[in-house]
Amino acid sequence: MDPLDVLTNLDEVIPYYQAIYSADEQQIIGYEVLGRIKLNDEAESLGEFFQDENIPDEYRIEVDDSILSLAIDEFLELKDSHLNLFINRDANLLMLDHGESFLEILLEKQQKGLKLNQIVLEITEHNFRGDIEQLYHLLLYYRTYGIKVAIDNIGKASSNLDRIGLLSPDILKIDLQPLRLSSPSQSYYDVLYSISLLARKIGAALLYEDIEVNFQLQYAWKNGGRYYQGFYLSKPQREFTKIDECKAMLKNEFQTYINSEKKKLENLYLFTENFNQRVQQILQKVGKQFENYEDLLQQLSKELNDCSFRIYICDEDGFQQSVNIFKQEKWEIQPQYFLHNWSWRPYFLANIMRMRFDQKGFLSDVYSDIETGELIRTFSFPLSQNHYLFIDLAYAYLYEEEGLL
Amino acid sequence: MDPLDVLTNLDEVIPYYQAIYSADEQQIIGYEVLGRIKLNDEAESLGEFFQDENIPDEYRIEVDDSILSLAIDEFLELKDSHLNLFINRDANLLMLDHGESFLEILLEKQQKGLKLNQIVLEITEHNFRGDIEQLYHLLLYYRTYGIKVAIDNIGKASSNLDRIGLLSPDILKIDLQPLRLSSPSQSYYDVLYSISLLARKIGAALLYEDIEVNFQLQYAWKNGGRYYQGFYLSKPQREFTKIDECKAMLKNEFQTYINSEKKKLENLYLFTENFNQRVQQILQKVGKQFENYEDLLQQLSKELNDCSFRIYICDEDGFQQSVNIFKQEKWEIQPQYFLHNWSWRPYFLANIMRMRFDQKGFLSDVYSDIETGELIRTFSFPLSQNHYLFIDLAYAYLYEEEGLL
Repeated sequence: MDPLDVLTNLDEVIPYYQAIYSADEQQIIGYEVLGRIKLNDEAESLGEFFQDENIPDEYRIEVDDSILSLAIDEFLELKDSHLNLFINRDANLLMLDHGESFLEILLEKQQKGLKLNQIVLEITEHNFRGDIEQLYHLLLYYRTYGIKVAIDNIGKASSNLDRIGLLSPDILKIDLQPLRLSSPSQSYYDVLYSISLLARKIGAALLYEDIEVNFQLQYAWKNGGRYYQGFYLSKPQREFTKIDECKAMLKNEFQTYINSEKKKLENLYLFTENFNQRVQQILQKVGKQFENYEDLLQQLSKELNDCSFRIYICDEDGFQQSVNIFKQEKWEIQPQYFLHNWSWRPYFLANIMRMRFDQKGFLSDVYSDIETGELIRTFSFPLSQNHYLFIDLAYAYLYEEEGLL
Repeated sequence: MDPLDVLTNLDEVIPYYQAIYSADEQQIIGYEVLGRIKLNDEAESLGEFFQDENIPDEYRIEVDDSILSLAIDEFLELKDSHLNLFINRDANLLMLDHGESFLEILLEKQQKGLKLNQIVLEITEHNFRGDIEQLYHLLLYYRTYGIKVAIDNIGKASSNLDRIGLLSPDILKIDLQPLRLSSPSQSYYDVLYSISLLARKIGAALLYEDIEVNFQLQYAWKNGGRYYQGFYLSKPQREFTKIDECKAMLKNEFQTYINSEKKKLENLYLFTENFNQRVQQILQKVGKQFENYEDLLQQLSKELNDCSFRIYICDEDGFQQSVNIFKQEKWEIQPQYFLHNWSWRPYFLANIMRMRFDQKGFLSDVYSDIETGELIRTFSFPLSQNHYLFIDLAYAYLYEEEGLL
């Protein structure tokens, strides 16, 4: 599309709205404004126009402001103060006048009944070239008016956790496209998992966008997604979609996810109970018939050959009280780990304390073994007053068991 | 320093070594090579020289290679195959010849006895301008030789989680300088926390560098740091520091951290036990003397006025079965939350399942409340067969209690 077509047809520039759904309410909580232009009875996206840095800034701002004004007027006709309007702004353009013209439009509309806490400003941070501190101060200033801030394109080209942390947005917007294209790498999942925990820590809500198929919705739900957007739910439209449009479908989907997740968690509990019993029985069988820990590990490795590839014993401060027994082709002793300390590992002391108080075994989450790189879980078990047994469970074993990966 | 001084004094260019300590062994596991030049009896850093992109690439490579060759020769004299040599390489320079000249030097030294699994290649990813996929393939190729990969400068200017995930390094190197300058923001801690969990998921070890004071070492230890480097432990030196130089000190420090962490965890357990009893007693006192859940929440809010700011009840699928009772100035009913669903929140269903199996209350970790932005914890409690009570504990209360923040 020729940029001139846009500038000479400003009265054909119109807002489209794409609905944003919430997991807690199972209905629409807001709409993202998307720029379109009507040319020959077709509504074409203005996305490229806004991203084209060859077009003078003032033209892009003019078109943007025209859409914004129209969108707010239409939004106000809904007369629903629970709904939010999500507005995209290029951080570079916004900062040209230190965010003043944008705020002016909003304040003008406030006279007409707009509440500024209904506005969510969507910023893409990764292509911002200015001073991040200044942007940060502007966003803080906006917030004093109740305006919420969303950071767009998380998990894409270059999301900087430190910048995200600094801007501490209300909403992190994550694109799920990589999940559709081909089979994404394990690391993609791991990164999204870290982002979801960061969001929890900083108190930001996650909005997953570009949801086009059911399994993306399930993935978003499983990974802390509070808000959802995408063709699977609603396409961008000239009109505002009715807020309970997908309510029945969403309730139904979520119930399926909940049931499946609960089933998985139940399995994990049952597995843990059973494995705990198994270890108890093995230890009873072995009794005191071992000369030292190395001998005990030898006996355990025979009994746990089907599931484990590494066994060792630590005291409650994390100092290893035994060698490692480790299986590659066959079981081998690794003497060098004796007296190594593992208390620095995430969750290590917390898990020890849990075992000390509960006096039973404990199954870890799935994580990558630091030596083999394989996805594993560790089963730990209180061996005596002060000593704890660690049994690393191999990927191949977890893979065969229901719901352990 | 004039770059010409470097190029005309190539025989004065020498390696310095800064020791890297491990938490599990409490001793040195390797040395980072740092370039220095001897001018007027002073050894000056070559850091600026290597970062100056006005100096032609081939000159910087020449100086880099000269240091590398000398460093490996000296390293081999140690005759210790457990030690590692950490070598910095600019990813942009490395890719000029697709990493071939670097590998050639290593292979040449292999003849002299170098094992390539003793080499850790340190790459800074955030200023890499080339094709990340190509870099990724080169690193994969290096790894087939046993060379380990560390990504430098994590948590600084612009660390991209997705790129880190893609490169899936053996080691993530995190600079702790922001921890020293002024009081860092909460978000800085939150970001490092996310990175440490990402590291666990992808199986990378964390190396904290620039440790200059004791509390940084403690912070590194608490946040999953396996390796440590900095003036607090060893300065860069011409000679290799003896591997057990800091052993006694480190053992002693770690023991202090372990004791303090265990004490904190014990407090958490005792607090949870006590709070569990408190809730039980309140519920016994209230008995069946409530008309509906709103009435029950009114009574609970009086009893828990000292510690809580929000109370509500959910079923085991996360559907809220009550309104919220919420305290700002005074306690108020928020009817809109009735039947909202919270199963999408991280850990929600896992915690429900834990309560179902253990039949007792559970205290969450510290996280930011999504509405107030305050750091809070949630105490949850199995109210009946299917219903669970959630008591959000206010920051001010946690702050007063020992070890709850």
